[in-house]
Amino acid sequence: MLTIKRLDISDAERLIAGARAKAQEIGVPMCIAVTDESGNLIAFERMDGGKITSIQLAIDKSFTASGIQKGTDALAEVNQPGMPAHGISSALGGKMVAVAGGLPVTSDGAVVGGIGVSSGSPAQDLEVAKAGAAAFENMSK
Amino acid sequence: MLTIKRLDISDAERLIAGARAKAQEIGVPMCIAVTDESGNLIAFERMDGGKITSIQLAIDKSFTASGIQKGTDALAEVNQPGMPAHGISSALGGKMVAVAGGLPVTSDGAVVGGIGVSSGSPAQDLEVAKAGAAAFENMSK
Amino acid sequence: MLTIKRLDISDAERLIAGARAKAQEIGVPMCIAVTDESGNLIAFERMDGGKITSIQLAIDKSFTASGIQKGTDALAEVNQPGMPAHGISSALGGKMVAVAGGLPVTSDGAVVGGIGVSSGSPAQDLEVAKAGAAAFENMSK
Amino acid sequence: MLTIKRLDISDAERLIAGARAKAQEIGVPMCIAVTDESGNLIAFERMDGGKITSIQLAIDKSFTASGIQKGTDALAEVNQPGMPAHGISSALGGKMVAVAGGLPVTSDGAVVGGIGVSSGSPAQDLEVAKAGAAAFENMSK
Repeated sequence: MLTIKRLDISDAERLIAGARAKAQEIGVPMCIAVTDESGNLIAFERMDGGKITSIQLAIDKSFTASGIQKGTDALAEVNQPGMPAHGISSALGGKMVAVAGGLPVTSDGAVVGGIGVSSGSPAQDLEVAKAGAAAFENMSK
Repeated sequence: MLTIKRLDISDAERLIAGARAKAQEIGVPMCIAVTDESGNLIAFERMDGGKITSIQLAIDKSFTASGIQKGTDALAEVNQPGMPAHGISSALGGKMVAVAGGLPVTSDGAVVGGIGVSSGSPAQDLEVAKAGAAAFENMSK
Repeated sequence: MLTIKRLDISDAERLIAGARAKAQEIGVPMCIAVTDESGNLIAFERMDGGKITSIQLAIDKSFTASGIQKGTDALAEVNQPGMPAHGISSALGGKMVAVAGGLPVTSDGAVVGGIGVSSGSPAQDLEVAKAGAAAFENMSK
Repeated sequence: MLTIKRLDISDAERLIAGARAKAQEIGVPMCIAVTDESGNLIAFERMDGGKITSIQLAIDKSFTASGIQKGTDALAEVNQPGMPAHGISSALGGKMVAVAGGLPVTSDGAVVGGIGVSSGSPAQDLEVAKAGAAAFENMSK
Protein backbone atom coordinates (compact mmCIF):
# COMPACT_ATOMS: atom_id res chain seq x y z
CA MET A 1 0.00 0.00 0.00
CA LEU A 2 1.15 3.54 -0.73
CA THR A 3 0.66 6.60 1.41
CA ILE A 4 0.51 9.71 -0.73
CA LYS A 5 1.10 13.30 0.31
CA ARG A 6 -1.10 15.69 -1.63
CA LEU A 7 -1.97 19.38 -1.65
CA ASP A 8 -5.33 20.13 -0.05
CA ILE A 9 -7.68 22.93 -1.12
CA SER A 10 -6.22 25.42 1.37
CA ASP A 11 -2.72 24.69 0.05
CA ALA A 12 -4.04 25.26 -3.46
CA GLU A 13 -5.52 28.60 -2.43
CA ARG A 14 -2.17 29.60 -0.94
CA LEU A 15 -0.42 28.72 -4.20
CA ILE A 16 -2.93 30.72 -6.22
CA ALA A 17 -2.69 33.69 -3.85
CA GLY A 18 1.09 33.73 -4.20
CA ALA A 19 0.87 33.59 -7.96
CA ARG A 20 -1.87 36.23 -8.12
CA ALA A 21 0.18 38.66 -6.03
CA LYS A 22 3.12 38.35 -8.42
CA ALA A 23 0.84 38.69 -11.46
CA GLN A 24 -0.58 41.89 -10.02
CA GLU A 25 2.93 43.15 -9.27
CA ILE A 26 4.06 42.68 -12.88
CA GLY A 27 0.70 43.87 -14.23
CA VAL A 28 -0.25 40.76 -16.24
CA PRO A 29 -3.65 39.17 -15.46
CA MET A 30 -3.15 35.42 -15.49
CA CYS A 31 -4.94 32.09 -15.60
CA ILE A 32 -3.65 30.05 -12.65
CA ALA A 33 -4.26 26.34 -12.08
CA VAL A 34 -3.26 23.96 -9.29
CA THR A 35 -3.34 20.20 -9.74
CA ASP A 36 -2.62 17.41 -7.31
CA GLU A 37 0.20 14.88 -7.57
CA SER A 38 -2.07 12.73 -9.78
CA GLY A 39 -2.54 15.57 -12.27
CA ASN A 40 -6.16 16.24 -11.31
CA LEU A 41 -7.32 19.85 -10.96
CA ILE A 42 -7.81 21.18 -7.43
CA ALA A 43 -8.37 24.87 -8.07
CA PHE A 44 -8.35 27.39 -10.90
CA GLU A 45 -8.65 31.14 -11.19
CA ARG A 46 -8.86 33.36 -14.26
CA MET A 47 -7.98 36.86 -13.13
CA ASP A 48 -10.06 39.57 -14.83
CA GLY A 49 -8.35 40.00 -18.19
CA GLY A 50 -6.77 36.52 -18.27
CA LYS A 51 -6.87 35.07 -21.78
CA ILE A 52 -9.51 32.51 -22.74
CA THR A 53 -6.95 30.48 -24.70
CA SER A 54 -4.93 30.26 -21.48
CA ILE A 55 -7.62 28.54 -19.40
CA GLN A 56 -6.88 25.03 -20.64
CA LEU A 57 -3.21 25.88 -21.17
CA ALA A 58 -2.75 26.75 -17.48
CA ILE A 59 -4.55 23.56 -16.45
CA ASP A 60 -2.47 21.50 -18.87
CA LYS A 61 0.81 23.09 -17.76
CA SER A 62 -0.01 22.18 -14.19
CA PHE A 63 -1.04 18.66 -15.22
CA THR A 64 2.21 18.27 -17.16
CA ALA A 65 4.38 19.48 -14.28
CA SER A 66 2.60 17.21 -11.80
CA GLY A 67 3.19 14.33 -14.14
CA ILE A 68 6.75 14.81 -15.31
CA GLN A 69 7.78 16.11 -11.87
CA LYS A 70 9.77 18.88 -13.55
CA GLY A 71 9.00 22.35 -14.80
CA THR A 72 7.46 22.61 -18.26
CA ASP A 73 10.44 24.85 -19.09
CA ALA A 74 12.57 21.71 -18.87
CA LEU A 75 10.24 20.04 -21.33
CA ALA A 76 10.52 23.09 -23.59
CA GLU A 77 14.24 22.41 -23.90
CA VAL A 78 14.00 18.74 -24.81
CA ASN A 79 11.09 19.43 -27.18
CA GLN A 80 13.39 21.45 -29.45
CA PRO A 81 14.53 20.02 -32.81
CA GLY A 82 17.55 17.78 -32.41
CA MET A 83 16.63 16.94 -28.85
CA PRO A 84 15.48 13.47 -27.85
CA ALA A 85 11.91 14.48 -26.96
CA HIS A 86 11.28 16.67 -30.00
CA GLY A 87 7.54 16.57 -30.68
CA ILE A 88 6.55 15.51 -27.16
CA SER A 89 4.36 18.66 -27.09
CA SER A 90 1.74 16.89 -29.19
CA ALA A 91 1.52 13.88 -26.86
CA LEU A 92 -1.65 13.16 -24.89
CA GLY A 93 -3.79 14.99 -27.42
CA GLY A 94 -1.78 18.13 -26.82
CA LYS A 95 -2.21 18.11 -23.02
CA MET A 96 1.58 17.70 -22.64
CA VAL A 97 2.68 21.33 -22.66
CA ALA A 98 6.30 22.11 -23.49
CA VAL A 99 6.22 25.83 -22.72
CA ALA A 100 7.41 27.43 -19.48
CA GLY A 101 4.88 28.24 -16.77
CA GLY A 102 4.19 24.86 -15.17
CA LEU A 103 6.07 23.74 -12.04
CA PRO A 104 5.86 20.79 -9.71
CA VAL A 105 5.16 21.61 -6.07
CA THR A 106 7.18 19.69 -3.52
CA SER A 107 7.09 18.96 0.18
CA ASP A 108 9.94 17.16 1.93
CA GLY A 109 11.37 16.39 -1.49
CA ALA A 110 8.23 14.71 -2.79
CA VAL A 111 6.02 16.08 -5.54
CA VAL A 112 2.64 16.83 -3.94
CA GLY A 113 1.10 18.74 -6.85
CA GLY A 114 1.69 21.27 -9.58
CA ILE A 115 0.97 24.84 -10.59
CA GLY A 116 0.40 26.14 -14.11
CA VAL A 117 0.25 29.75 -15.28
CA SER A 118 -0.63 31.24 -18.65
CA SER A 119 -1.51 34.56 -20.32
CA GLY A 120 1.85 36.31 -20.33
CA SER A 121 5.14 35.49 -22.04
CA PRO A 122 6.65 32.13 -21.11
CA ALA A 123 9.13 33.97 -18.88
CA GLN A 124 6.34 35.89 -17.12
CA ASP A 125 4.28 32.73 -16.71
CA LEU A 126 7.25 30.97 -15.12
CA GLU A 127 7.97 33.90 -12.81
CA VAL A 128 4.38 33.87 -11.57
CA ALA A 129 4.34 30.09 -11.16
CA LYS A 130 7.55 30.31 -9.10
CA ALA A 131 5.96 32.90 -6.83
CA GLY A 132 2.99 30.60 -6.31
CA ALA A 133 5.16 27.60 -5.53
CA ALA A 134 7.34 29.66 -3.19
CA ALA A 135 4.30 30.89 -1.26
CA PHE A 136 3.49 27.28 -0.44
CA GLU A 137 6.95 25.83 -0.05
CA ASN A 138 8.31 28.60 2.18
CA MET A 139 5.31 28.31 4.44
CA SER A 140 5.47 24.53 4.73
CA LYS A 141 9.13 24.53 5.77
CA MET B 1 -21.49 46.15 -31.32
CA LEU B 2 -23.02 44.36 -28.37
CA THR B 3 -22.51 45.30 -24.74
CA ILE B 4 -22.36 42.28 -22.44
CA LYS B 5 -22.44 41.93 -18.66
CA ARG B 6 -20.21 39.21 -17.24
CA LEU B 7 -19.25 37.83 -13.83
CA ASP B 8 -15.84 38.97 -12.62
CA ILE B 9 -13.48 36.91 -10.47
CA SER B 10 -14.81 38.32 -7.19
CA ASP B 11 -18.36 37.41 -8.27
CA ALA B 12 -17.12 33.92 -9.07
CA GLU B 13 -15.52 33.61 -5.63
CA ARG B 14 -18.81 34.66 -4.03
CA LEU B 15 -20.66 31.99 -6.00
CA ILE B 16 -18.16 29.33 -4.97
CA ALA B 17 -18.26 30.42 -1.32
CA GLY B 18 -22.06 30.15 -1.30
CA ALA B 19 -21.93 26.70 -2.84
CA ARG B 20 -19.13 25.53 -0.53
CA ALA B 21 -21.07 26.60 2.57
CA LYS B 22 -24.08 24.54 1.49
CA ALA B 23 -21.88 21.57 0.60
CA GLN B 24 -20.34 21.68 4.07
CA GLU B 25 -23.79 21.96 5.63
CA ILE B 26 -25.03 18.82 3.89
CA GLY B 27 -21.69 17.07 4.37
CA VAL B 28 -20.87 16.35 0.71
CA PRO B 29 -17.52 17.61 -0.59
CA MET B 30 -18.09 18.98 -4.09
CA CYS B 31 -16.39 20.10 -7.27
CA ILE B 32 -17.64 23.62 -8.01
CA ALA B 33 -17.09 25.51 -11.28
CA VAL B 34 -18.09 29.00 -12.40
CA THR B 35 -18.12 29.99 -16.07
CA ASP B 36 -18.82 33.28 -17.76
CA GLU B 37 -21.78 33.98 -20.05
CA SER B 38 -19.74 32.62 -22.98
CA GLY B 39 -19.09 29.31 -21.25
CA ASN B 40 -15.43 29.94 -20.44
CA LEU B 41 -14.16 28.92 -16.98
CA ILE B 42 -13.56 31.69 -14.45
CA ALA B 43 -12.94 29.72 -11.27
CA PHE B 44 -12.97 26.17 -9.99
CA GLU B 45 -12.60 24.48 -6.62
CA ARG B 46 -12.45 20.83 -5.70
CA MET B 47 -13.20 20.56 -2.02
CA ASP B 48 -11.11 17.96 -0.21
CA GLY B 49 -12.91 14.69 -0.98
CA GLY B 50 -14.53 15.95 -4.20
CA LYS B 51 -14.59 13.25 -6.86
CA ILE B 52 -12.04 13.29 -9.65
CA THR B 53 -14.68 12.27 -12.21
CA SER B 54 -16.61 15.34 -11.15
CA ILE B 55 -13.92 17.86 -12.07
CA GLN B 56 -14.78 18.03 -15.76
CA LEU B 57 -18.44 17.30 -15.04
CA ALA B 58 -18.77 20.39 -12.85
CA ILE B 59 -17.01 22.49 -15.49
CA ASP B 60 -19.22 21.07 -18.24
CA LYS B 61 -22.42 21.54 -16.23
CA SER B 62 -21.53 25.18 -15.77
CA PHE B 63 -20.67 25.53 -19.48
CA THR B 64 -23.97 23.91 -20.43
CA ALA B 65 -26.03 26.14 -18.15
CA SER B 66 -24.25 29.27 -19.40
CA GLY B 67 -25.03 28.20 -22.94
CA ILE B 68 -28.60 26.93 -22.77
CA GLN B 69 -29.51 29.66 -20.27
CA LYS B 70 -31.45 27.11 -18.24
CA GLY B 71 -30.60 24.65 -15.50
CA THR B 72 -29.13 21.35 -16.59
CA ASP B 73 -32.05 19.77 -14.70
CA ALA B 74 -34.31 21.13 -17.46
CA LEU B 75 -32.10 19.41 -20.01
CA ALA B 76 -32.27 16.22 -17.95
CA GLU B 77 -36.04 16.16 -18.50
CA VAL B 78 -36.00 16.58 -22.27
CA ASN B 79 -33.12 14.10 -22.55
CA GLN B 80 -35.33 11.30 -21.18
CA PRO B 81 -36.62 8.50 -23.44
CA GLY B 82 -39.63 9.60 -25.43
CA MET B 83 -38.68 13.26 -25.13
CA PRO B 84 -37.69 15.33 -28.17
CA ALA B 85 -34.10 15.94 -27.09
CA HIS B 86 -33.37 12.37 -26.00
CA GLY B 87 -29.68 11.82 -26.65
CA ILE B 88 -28.70 15.50 -26.46
CA SER B 89 -26.38 14.45 -23.60
CA SER B 90 -23.88 13.15 -26.13
CA ALA B 91 -23.73 16.40 -28.12
CA LEU B 92 -20.59 18.55 -28.20
CA GLY B 93 -18.39 15.55 -27.54
CA GLY B 94 -20.30 14.96 -24.31
CA LYS B 95 -19.74 18.47 -22.95
CA MET B 96 -23.52 19.00 -23.02
CA VAL B 97 -24.48 17.68 -19.60
CA ALA B 98 -28.11 16.66 -19.04
CA VAL B 99 -27.88 16.00 -15.31
CA ALA B 100 -28.96 18.41 -12.57
CA GLY B 101 -26.34 20.61 -10.92
CA GLY B 102 -25.72 23.33 -13.49
CA LEU B 103 -27.52 26.66 -13.29
CA PRO B 104 -27.32 29.94 -15.19
CA VAL B 105 -26.50 32.99 -13.10
CA THR B 106 -28.48 36.11 -13.86
CA SER B 107 -28.28 39.81 -13.16
CA ASP B 108 -31.12 42.15 -14.10
CA GLY B 109 -32.66 39.31 -16.09
CA ALA B 110 -29.59 38.66 -18.24
CA VAL B 111 -27.45 35.54 -18.04
CA VAL B 112 -24.01 36.69 -16.85
CA GLY B 113 -22.50 33.25 -16.22
CA GLY B 114 -23.13 29.81 -14.84
CA ILE B 115 -22.33 27.54 -11.92
CA GLY B 116 -21.82 23.79 -12.04
CA VAL B 117 -21.61 21.37 -9.14
CA SER B 118 -20.79 17.67 -9.05
CA SER B 119 -19.86 14.87 -6.62
CA GLY B 120 -23.18 14.25 -4.85
CA SER B 121 -26.53 13.03 -6.13
CA PRO B 122 -28.09 15.17 -8.84
CA ALA B 123 -30.47 16.57 -6.21
CA GLN B 124 -27.58 17.46 -3.90
CA ASP B 125 -25.58 18.97 -6.76
CA LEU B 126 -28.58 21.13 -7.68
CA GLU B 127 -29.15 22.21 -4.08
CA VAL B 128 -25.53 23.31 -3.78
CA ALA B 129 -25.60 25.10 -7.14
CA LYS B 130 -28.74 26.96 -6.05
CA ALA B 131 -27.01 28.08 -2.86
CA GLY B 132 -24.10 29.38 -4.91
CA ALA B 133 -26.33 31.25 -7.34
CA ALA B 134 -28.38 32.69 -4.47
CA ALA B 135 -25.25 33.97 -2.71
CA PHE B 136 -24.50 36.04 -5.81
CA GLU B 137 -27.99 37.03 -6.89
CA ASN B 138 -29.19 38.08 -3.44
CA MET B 139 -26.14 40.24 -2.99
CA SER B 140 -26.40 41.91 -6.37
CA LYS B 141 -30.01 42.98 -5.86
CA MET C 1 -16.49 9.47 -62.60
CA LEU C 2 -19.26 11.18 -60.66
CA THR C 3 -20.76 14.58 -61.29
CA ILE C 4 -22.05 16.09 -58.07
CA LYS C 5 -24.58 18.86 -57.63
CA ARG C 6 -23.77 21.03 -54.64
CA LEU C 7 -25.03 24.22 -53.01
CA ASP C 8 -22.83 27.22 -53.74
CA ILE C 9 -22.23 30.13 -51.35
CA SER C 10 -25.09 32.20 -52.76
CA ASP C 11 -27.45 29.25 -52.29
CA ALA C 12 -26.21 28.96 -48.72
CA GLU C 13 -26.89 32.64 -48.12
CA ARG C 14 -30.41 32.18 -49.48
CA LEU C 15 -30.99 29.28 -47.09
CA ILE C 16 -29.71 31.29 -44.15
CA ALA C 17 -31.80 34.33 -45.12
CA GLY C 18 -34.95 32.18 -45.27
CA ALA C 19 -34.21 30.67 -41.88
CA ARG C 20 -33.32 34.03 -40.34
CA ALA C 21 -36.60 35.57 -41.50
CA LYS C 22 -38.58 32.81 -39.82
CA ALA C 23 -36.47 33.04 -36.65
CA GLN C 24 -37.18 36.76 -36.49
CA GLU C 25 -40.89 36.12 -37.10
CA ILE C 26 -41.11 33.70 -34.15
CA GLY C 27 -38.80 35.83 -32.03
CA VAL C 28 -36.08 33.23 -31.35
CA PRO C 29 -32.50 34.20 -32.28
CA MET C 30 -30.88 31.13 -33.83
CA CYS C 31 -27.60 29.58 -34.86
CA ILE C 32 -27.96 28.58 -38.52
CA ALA C 33 -25.52 26.38 -40.46
CA VAL C 34 -25.44 25.22 -44.07
CA THR C 35 -23.32 22.28 -45.17
CA ASP C 36 -22.71 20.81 -48.60
CA GLU C 37 -23.69 17.31 -49.73
CA SER C 38 -20.36 16.05 -48.31
CA GLY C 39 -21.17 17.40 -44.85
CA ASN C 40 -18.63 20.22 -45.00
CA LEU C 41 -19.63 23.66 -43.72
CA ILE C 42 -20.39 26.34 -46.32
CA ALA C 43 -21.82 29.11 -44.16
CA PHE C 44 -22.83 29.82 -40.60
CA GLU C 45 -24.54 32.65 -38.78
CA ARG C 46 -25.18 33.17 -35.07
CA MET C 47 -27.93 35.75 -34.79
CA ASP C 48 -27.43 38.17 -31.90
CA GLY C 49 -28.69 36.23 -28.88
CA GLY C 50 -28.12 32.77 -30.42
CA LYS C 51 -26.83 30.33 -27.82
CA ILE C 52 -23.14 29.45 -27.66
CA THR C 53 -23.93 25.78 -27.02
CA SER C 54 -25.91 25.85 -30.29
CA ILE C 55 -23.00 26.85 -32.53
CA GLN C 56 -21.58 23.36 -32.90
CA LEU C 57 -25.04 21.80 -32.54
CA ALA C 58 -26.34 23.68 -35.58
CA ILE C 59 -23.26 22.72 -37.59
CA ASP C 60 -23.58 19.09 -36.49
CA LYS C 61 -27.31 18.96 -37.26
CA SER C 62 -26.59 20.17 -40.77
CA PHE C 63 -23.72 17.69 -41.13
CA THR C 64 -25.98 14.87 -39.93
CA ALA C 65 -28.80 15.76 -42.32
CA SER C 66 -26.41 16.06 -45.27
CA GLY C 67 -25.07 12.67 -44.39
CA ILE C 68 -28.16 10.63 -43.57
CA GLN C 69 -30.13 12.44 -46.30
CA LYS C 70 -33.08 12.74 -43.90
CA GLY C 71 -34.13 15.21 -41.27
CA THR C 72 -32.56 14.84 -37.84
CA ASP C 73 -36.14 14.57 -36.55
CA ALA C 74 -36.28 11.18 -38.29
CA LEU C 75 -33.12 10.22 -36.44
CA ALA C 76 -34.71 11.39 -33.20
CA GLU C 77 -37.42 8.77 -33.65
CA VAL C 78 -35.13 5.82 -34.29
CA ASN C 79 -32.79 6.93 -31.50
CA GLN C 80 -35.51 6.28 -28.90
CA PRO C 81 -35.27 3.26 -26.59
CA GLY C 82 -36.65 0.13 -28.23
CA MET C 83 -35.86 1.44 -31.69
CA PRO C 84 -33.16 -0.10 -33.85
CA ALA C 85 -30.83 2.91 -33.80
CA HIS C 86 -31.11 3.64 -30.09
CA GLY C 87 -27.84 5.30 -29.04
CA ILE C 88 -26.87 6.46 -32.53
CA SER C 89 -26.75 9.98 -31.05
CA SER C 90 -23.37 9.25 -29.54
CA ALA C 91 -21.84 8.08 -32.83
CA LEU C 92 -19.04 10.03 -34.50
CA GLY C 93 -17.93 11.50 -31.22
CA GLY C 94 -21.37 13.01 -30.75
CA LYS C 95 -21.49 14.76 -34.13
CA MET C 96 -24.47 12.59 -35.12
CA VAL C 97 -27.33 14.66 -33.77
CA ALA C 98 -30.69 12.97 -33.17
CA VAL C 99 -32.68 16.09 -32.35
CA ALA C 100 -34.96 17.94 -34.77
CA GLY C 101 -33.60 20.98 -36.58
CA GLY C 102 -31.41 19.49 -39.31
CA LEU C 103 -32.76 18.94 -42.83
CA PRO C 104 -31.31 17.80 -46.12
CA VAL C 105 -31.61 20.27 -48.99
CA THR C 106 -32.59 18.79 -52.34
CA SER C 107 -32.58 19.82 -55.97
CA ASP C 108 -34.22 17.65 -58.64
CA GLY C 109 -34.57 14.94 -56.04
CA ALA C 110 -30.89 14.84 -55.15
CA VAL C 111 -29.43 15.93 -51.81
CA VAL C 112 -27.21 18.93 -52.53
CA GLY C 113 -26.59 20.01 -48.94
CA GLY C 114 -28.10 20.45 -45.51
CA ILE C 115 -29.27 23.06 -43.07
CA GLY C 116 -29.05 22.91 -39.28
CA VAL C 117 -30.72 25.20 -36.75
CA SER C 118 -30.36 25.40 -32.97
CA SER C 119 -31.20 27.67 -30.01
CA GLY C 120 -34.97 27.15 -29.71
CA SER C 121 -37.05 24.10 -28.89
CA PRO C 122 -36.61 21.16 -31.29
CA ALA C 123 -39.96 22.12 -32.87
CA GLN C 124 -38.87 25.72 -33.35
CA ASP C 125 -35.50 24.66 -34.73
CA LEU C 126 -37.24 22.42 -37.26
CA GLU C 127 -39.70 25.14 -38.26
CA VAL C 128 -36.85 27.54 -38.94
CA ALA C 129 -34.83 24.92 -40.84
CA LYS C 130 -37.89 24.22 -43.01
CA ALA C 131 -38.24 27.89 -43.82
CA GLY C 132 -34.59 27.99 -44.86
CA ALA C 133 -34.88 24.92 -47.06
CA ALA C 134 -38.10 26.24 -48.61
CA ALA C 135 -36.47 29.56 -49.48
CA PHE C 136 -33.96 27.65 -51.57
CA GLU C 137 -36.10 24.88 -52.97
CA ASN C 138 -39.00 27.12 -54.02
CA MET C 139 -36.62 29.41 -55.82
CA SER C 140 -34.79 26.64 -57.63
CA LYS C 141 -37.98 25.11 -59.01
CA MET D 1 -19.35 42.51 -12.85
CA LEU D 2 -17.51 43.21 -16.06
CA THR D 3 -18.88 45.10 -19.04
CA ILE D 4 -17.67 43.70 -22.36
CA LYS D 5 -17.89 45.03 -25.93
CA ARG D 6 -18.47 42.37 -28.59
CA LEU D 7 -18.95 42.21 -32.34
CA ASP D 8 -22.56 41.72 -33.40
CA ILE D 9 -23.70 39.82 -36.47
CA SER D 10 -23.76 42.90 -38.71
CA ASP D 11 -20.18 43.69 -37.68
CA ALA D 12 -19.24 40.11 -38.52
CA GLU D 13 -20.83 40.42 -41.95
CA ARG D 14 -18.85 43.59 -42.56
CA LEU D 15 -15.63 41.82 -41.64
CA ILE D 16 -16.42 38.93 -43.94
CA ALA D 17 -17.38 41.26 -46.79
CA GLY D 18 -14.08 43.11 -46.47
CA ALA D 19 -12.13 39.86 -46.48
CA ARG D 20 -14.11 38.43 -49.39
CA ALA D 21 -13.47 41.51 -51.53
CA LYS D 22 -9.72 41.15 -51.01
CA ALA D 23 -9.85 37.40 -51.69
CA GLN D 24 -11.64 38.07 -54.96
CA GLU D 25 -9.09 40.76 -55.83
CA ILE D 26 -6.16 38.39 -55.39
CA GLY D 27 -8.08 35.51 -56.94
CA VAL D 28 -7.91 33.05 -54.03
CA PRO D 29 -11.24 31.67 -52.74
CA MET D 30 -11.05 31.58 -48.95
CA CYS D 31 -12.67 30.21 -45.83
CA ILE D 32 -13.41 33.19 -43.57
CA ALA D 33 -14.47 32.98 -39.92
CA VAL D 34 -15.37 35.63 -37.37
CA THR D 35 -15.41 34.90 -33.64
CA ASP D 36 -16.40 37.03 -30.69
CA GLU D 37 -13.99 38.21 -27.97
CA SER D 38 -14.61 34.93 -26.12
CA GLY D 39 -13.59 32.83 -29.10
CA ASN D 40 -17.09 31.66 -30.04
CA LEU D 41 -18.02 31.62 -33.74
CA ILE D 42 -20.34 34.38 -34.98
CA ALA D 43 -20.21 33.87 -38.74
CA PHE D 44 -18.44 31.77 -41.33
CA GLU D 45 -18.26 31.69 -45.11
CA ARG D 46 -16.54 29.27 -47.45
CA MET D 47 -16.24 30.97 -50.81
CA ASP D 48 -16.81 28.65 -53.76
CA GLY D 49 -13.48 26.87 -54.13
CA GLY D 50 -12.37 27.37 -50.53
CA LYS D 51 -10.56 24.32 -49.20
CA ILE D 52 -12.36 21.85 -46.97
CA THR D 53 -9.29 21.48 -44.73
CA SER D 54 -9.45 25.23 -44.22
CA ILE D 55 -12.94 25.28 -42.68
CA GLN D 56 -11.85 24.37 -39.18
CA LEU D 57 -8.48 26.08 -39.68
CA ALA D 58 -10.15 29.43 -40.36
CA ILE D 59 -12.41 28.99 -37.34
CA ASP D 60 -9.46 28.00 -35.14
CA LYS D 61 -7.29 30.88 -36.38
CA SER D 62 -10.04 33.29 -35.43
CA PHE D 63 -10.49 31.58 -32.04
CA THR D 64 -6.73 31.77 -31.43
CA ALA D 65 -6.50 35.45 -32.33
CA SER D 66 -9.51 36.30 -30.14
CA GLY D 67 -7.84 34.49 -27.29
CA ILE D 68 -4.20 35.53 -27.50
CA GLN D 69 -5.21 39.05 -28.56
CA LYS D 70 -2.47 39.03 -31.19
CA GLY D 71 -2.22 37.87 -34.76
CA THR D 72 -1.52 34.18 -35.29
CA ASP D 73 1.52 35.34 -37.28
CA ALA D 74 3.01 36.44 -33.96
CA LEU D 75 2.41 32.95 -32.61
CA ALA D 76 4.00 31.52 -35.76
CA GLU D 77 7.25 33.27 -34.82
CA VAL D 78 7.47 32.04 -31.24
CA ASN D 79 6.43 28.54 -32.33
CA GLN D 80 9.61 28.20 -34.43
CA PRO D 81 12.46 25.91 -33.36
CA GLY D 82 14.63 27.54 -30.73
CA MET D 83 11.85 29.85 -29.65
CA PRO D 84 10.29 29.63 -26.18
CA ALA D 85 6.82 28.59 -27.36
CA HIS D 86 8.00 26.00 -29.87
CA GLY D 87 5.28 23.35 -29.97
CA ILE D 88 2.47 25.64 -28.79
CA SER D 89 0.74 24.76 -32.07
CA SER D 90 -0.33 21.43 -30.63
CA ALA D 91 -1.95 22.96 -27.54
CA LEU D 92 -5.71 22.85 -26.97
CA GLY D 93 -6.02 19.72 -29.06
CA GLY D 94 -4.52 21.60 -31.99
CA LYS D 95 -7.04 24.45 -31.87
CA MET D 96 -4.16 26.83 -31.11
CA VAL D 97 -3.07 27.75 -34.63
CA ALA D 98 0.43 29.16 -35.10
CA VAL D 99 0.12 30.07 -38.79
CA ALA D 100 -0.60 33.55 -40.16
CA GLY D 101 -4.18 34.43 -41.08
CA GLY D 102 -5.84 35.08 -37.73
CA LEU D 103 -6.13 38.60 -36.34
CA PRO D 104 -7.80 40.15 -33.32
CA VAL D 105 -10.40 42.81 -34.08
CA THR D 106 -10.32 45.88 -31.88
CA SER D 107 -12.56 48.79 -31.03
CA ASP D 108 -11.32 51.67 -28.89
CA GLY D 109 -8.26 49.59 -28.04
CA ALA D 110 -10.20 46.59 -26.75
CA VAL D 111 -10.36 43.21 -28.45
CA VAL D 112 -13.98 42.70 -29.49
CA GLY D 113 -13.50 39.61 -31.63
CA GLY D 114 -11.30 37.94 -34.21
CA ILE D 115 -11.11 37.02 -37.87
CA GLY D 116 -9.51 33.91 -39.33
CA VAL D 117 -8.74 33.19 -42.98
CA SER D 118 -7.46 30.04 -44.64
CA SER D 119 -7.04 28.45 -48.09
CA GLY D 120 -4.17 30.48 -49.54
CA SER D 121 -0.56 30.83 -48.47
CA PRO D 122 -0.06 32.17 -44.94
CA ALA D 123 0.85 35.56 -46.47
CA GLN D 124 -2.34 35.59 -48.56
CA ASP D 125 -4.44 34.49 -45.59
CA LEU D 126 -2.99 37.33 -43.52
CA GLU D 127 -3.54 39.89 -46.28
CA VAL D 128 -7.19 38.88 -46.55
CA ALA D 129 -7.68 38.89 -42.77
CA LYS D 130 -6.19 42.39 -42.62
CA ALA D 131 -8.62 43.59 -45.26
CA GLY D 132 -11.50 42.17 -43.24
CA ALA D 133 -10.34 43.76 -40.01
CA ALA D 134 -9.76 47.08 -41.77
CA ALA D 135 -13.28 47.07 -43.22
CA PHE D 136 -14.62 46.96 -39.67
CA GLU D 137 -12.09 49.10 -37.87
CA ASN D 138 -12.09 51.93 -40.41
CA MET D 139 -15.86 52.08 -40.32
CA SER D 140 -16.10 52.07 -36.54
CA LYS D 141 -13.69 54.99 -36.11
